[in-house]
Amino acid sequence: MEAYLDNSATTPPCPEAIAAMQEELARLWGNPSSLHRMGLEAEHLLERARACVATSLGCEPAEVVFTSGGTESNNLALFGAALAQRRRGKRIVTSAVEHSSVAESAKELAARGFEVIYLGVDRSGRVSEQELLRAINRETILVSLMAVNNEVGTLQPVEAIRQAVRLQKAPALIHCDAVQAFGKLPVQPGRMGVDLLTVSSHKVHGPKGVGALFTRRGIRLAPLLFGGAQENKLRPGTQAMPAIAGFAAAVNALPELQQSLEYVSSLRERLVRGLRSMEGVKLNSPPDALPYLTNCSLPGLQSESLLNFLSERGVCVSSGSACTKGKKSRVLRAMGLSDADISGALRVSLSRFTTWEEIDAFLCALNEARQSLARKL
Amino acid sequence: MEAYLDNSATTPPCPEAIAAMQEELARLWGNPSSLHRMGLEAEHLLERARACVATSLGCEPAEVVFTSGGTESNNLALFGAALAQRRRGKRIVTSAVEHSSVAESAKELAARGFEVIYLGVDRSGRVSEQELLRAINRETILVSLMAVNNEVGTLQPVEAIRQAVRLQKAPALIHCDAVQAFGKLPVQPGRMGVDLLTVSSHKVHGPKGVGALFTRRGIRLAPLLFGGAQENKLRPGTQAMPAIAGFAAAVNALPELQQSLEYVSSLRERLVRGLRSMEGVKLNSPPDALPYLTNCSLPGLQSESLLNFLSERGVCVSSGSACTKGKKSRVLRAMGLSDADISGALRVSLSRFTTWEEIDAFLCALNEARQSLARKL
Repeated sequence: MEAYLDNSATTPPCPEAIAAMQEELARLWGNPSSLHRMGLEAEHLLERARACVATSLGCEPAEVVFTSGGTESNNLALFGAALAQRRRGKRIVTSAVEHSSVAESAKELAARGFEVIYLGVDRSGRVSEQELLRAINRETILVSLMAVNNEVGTLQPVEAIRQAVRLQKAPALIHCDAVQAFGKLPVQPGRMGVDLLTVSSHKVHGPKGVGALFTRRGIRLAPLLFGGAQENKLRPGTQAMPAIAGFAAAVNALPELQQSLEYVSSLRERLVRGLRSMEGVKLNSPPDALPYLTNCSLPGLQSESLLNFLSERGVCVSSGSACTKGKKSRVLRAMGLSDADISGALRVSLSRFTTWEEIDAFLCALNEARQSLARKL
Repeated sequence: MEAYLDNSATTPPCPEAIAAMQEELARLWGNPSSLHRMGLEAEHLLERARACVATSLGCEPAEVVFTSGGTESNNLALFGAALAQRRRGKRIVTSAVEHSSVAESAKELAARGFEVIYLGVDRSGRVSEQELLRAINRETILVSLMAVNNEVGTLQPVEAIRQAVRLQKAPALIHCDAVQAFGKLPVQPGRMGVDLLTVSSHKVHGPKGVGALFTRRGIRLAPLLFGGAQENKLRPGTQAMPAIAGFAAAVNALPELQQSLEYVSSLRERLVRGLRSMEGVKLNSPPDALPYLTNCSLPGLQSESLLNFLSERGVCVSSGSACTKGKKSRVLRAMGLSDADISGALRVSLSRFTTWEEIDAFLCALNEARQSLARKL
C-alpha cells in the first residue's frame, strides 16, 4: 500500500493496543464478573481501562460506560435519554449532518412519537447558534450535536448548547457525538457542558468492537439491552475485554494533542496546496475544519471510479462515511452542494501516523486519475 | 493457578483465535464497509469468518448476524421477534431457568404489554413437553428456550417446540439460546427446527466481545440498534473485526465434538466420583446433564466462602452465572432446591482443555474447604 488516508473510517491499531490485547488474551482472560482470582484480575484490568479513558475525558471512572462502539453509544444516548425523559417533553433537537447512528436513531424516535428538529447548516457545514437557540423550547428533552463532522471536519458549536438550554429553561440532556474529535482535540465533557458523550476506539488507533458513552453522574438513562448488571446496570453482557484493553492502551498512547495537531496541520497544508493546484478540484471542507479531515470534489467525475482508480494504485480514501457505504452524502447535500459536487466527492482523512510520502502519493495518483478518468468521459 | 473450572463463565482463548486476532490487528485492520483495498480485504476476512460460523451451524452465511455477544444476540432475538410480530399476538413462552439476558428481556417485554409465560422445570431442571404444548396458543408469537442450562447443564426439549407450534397453529418464531451447547453438542438450527439461535465466542475459546444470532432466511426482525446497513441491516456499526476473526478461528479449531465429549465425560466421571465420596455434598445436575457442567451443593456452607477458599488455593469455580454475580440462583430455586442447598451451590464447568490434574486439584481443595469452613461454623 502506498497511502492510507481513510483514518476517519478506521485507523491502524497502534503497537500499544496490540500488546495490551495480547496480554488480555494470553493471561488476563477471566470474566470480570467472576468472583475468583481470574475474575478479579480481569476486573482490575477493566477498571484500569475505565480509569484510563476517564482520565483522558477529565471525568470520573464511574461515568464511563463501555459499549460495543460508537454506533451503540449513540443509540444508547438517544434512546436512553429520550425514553427516560419522555414524561418531561417530546422535542429532540439535532442537526442535519449527524452520523447515521444518530440520524437513524432520531428517525426511529420520530416514528415513536417524538418531535425531532433537524438544524440545517451553512455552506461550511456549521449549525447556527441562533437557530439552535430558537429550536430549543421547554419541551426539549434532548439536544444531540456532533463535535466534529465525520465527512467534512467542520466543528460544531457544542459548547453553546448548555447556555441555550438554560436560557430556554429546557429539561434537555445534552449529547455530543465526539467520535471524530476524540484523540485530536481536547474532549472534556465537563468543560463542554454535555451530559452524554460518545467516543470510539477504532478511530484512535484502538481495535474495532468497543467504544464508550460518558454518562454524567446522576443522569438517568433507559438501557437498550437487558440482562446482567455489568457497566453500572446500563449495558449488560460480559465486557469485550480484549478490545477494552486495546482501547485503553491506545488512549494512553495518545501523544500530546497539540503536537499531533501541528504535525497534521502541516500535512493538511501540503494536501490543500496540492489539491488547489489541480484544475477542477473544489474544496468542500471549510478552512477552519479539523485538519485531520479534508473533503473535496472533482465535479464531472464519480467518487466510486476515483476510489477504484486510487485503490488500484494503493491509495485508500473514501467518498464519505463508511457507515453509509455507497449512498450519496446527506452532509454535502445539507451544505448546499450541487449534485455534481456531491457525486464527485472524496474524503481524505489523516492520522498522526500519516507521512508526507502518503500525501504525495495521493496527490500524484489523484492527478493521474483526473487525467485518465476525464479522458474516458 | 492450579485449576480453572469455570469454563461456563468464560474460556481461555485458544492459540488459533489469538493468532487470527493478531493478523487482523497487524495486517487486516481495514473497515469492511470501506470501498478501497484495505476495506475489501477486511470484508473478505469478515465473510470468511461468517462462512466459518455458518458451516459449524449448518446454515447459510447470510443467516449469521454478528453481534457484540450472547447478551445482545438474546436481546435481538426477543425484542426483534416480539416487536416485528406484535400484530399477530401477544404471548411469549419461555422458561423459568433462562439466562438473565433472556429473562430480563422477557420481563421488559411483559412491562411493555406482552404476555409472558414462564414454564417451570422439574427437579432435573427440565421443562415438560406437555406443559410447553399447553402454554403455546394461537396468540403465541415467540417461544424462547435454551439448549443447555448454564448453571446445571440440563438439556431442554428444544426440538419438541416446532411440533408444538405446529399443533397449536401458532404464528410463533422459535428462539434457542445455545450459548452453552455450541461447540459441545451438535447445534444445527435447521435440524432443531428453530428460527433464531444464539451463540457466543468466549464460551468456545474465542475472545469476549462477539457472538452471533442465527436468523433463518426470510425471518423479519425489528433491529435493536439504528445506523448503518451492516449485518444485513440488522446490526449497524463497524463490525468488531478482531473479535470476529478470533471467534471464527476458535470455531474452526473445534475438534470433533464427539471426541471432546468423551474426554470431558471421563473427566466428569472422576469429578462426580470425587464429589460423591465427600460426605454432605449433593449433586444438583441430573445424570444426563451435559458433562461439561456439574452443579453441586454443600448445604450449611456459603458459596462465597467456598469460592474464596478455593480461589486462594488457585482453584476457580463459580456459584452460578457470572452475569448474575452475587445473586441467589433462580435456576436452583425453580428446580425446587432448599435455601441451604442454594446458598451452598458450586458450579464446576469443564472444557476440552481441562486436565485430570485440575479435577484432582479441585477435589483436594474442596475437601480442605469442607473441613476448614465447617470447623469455623
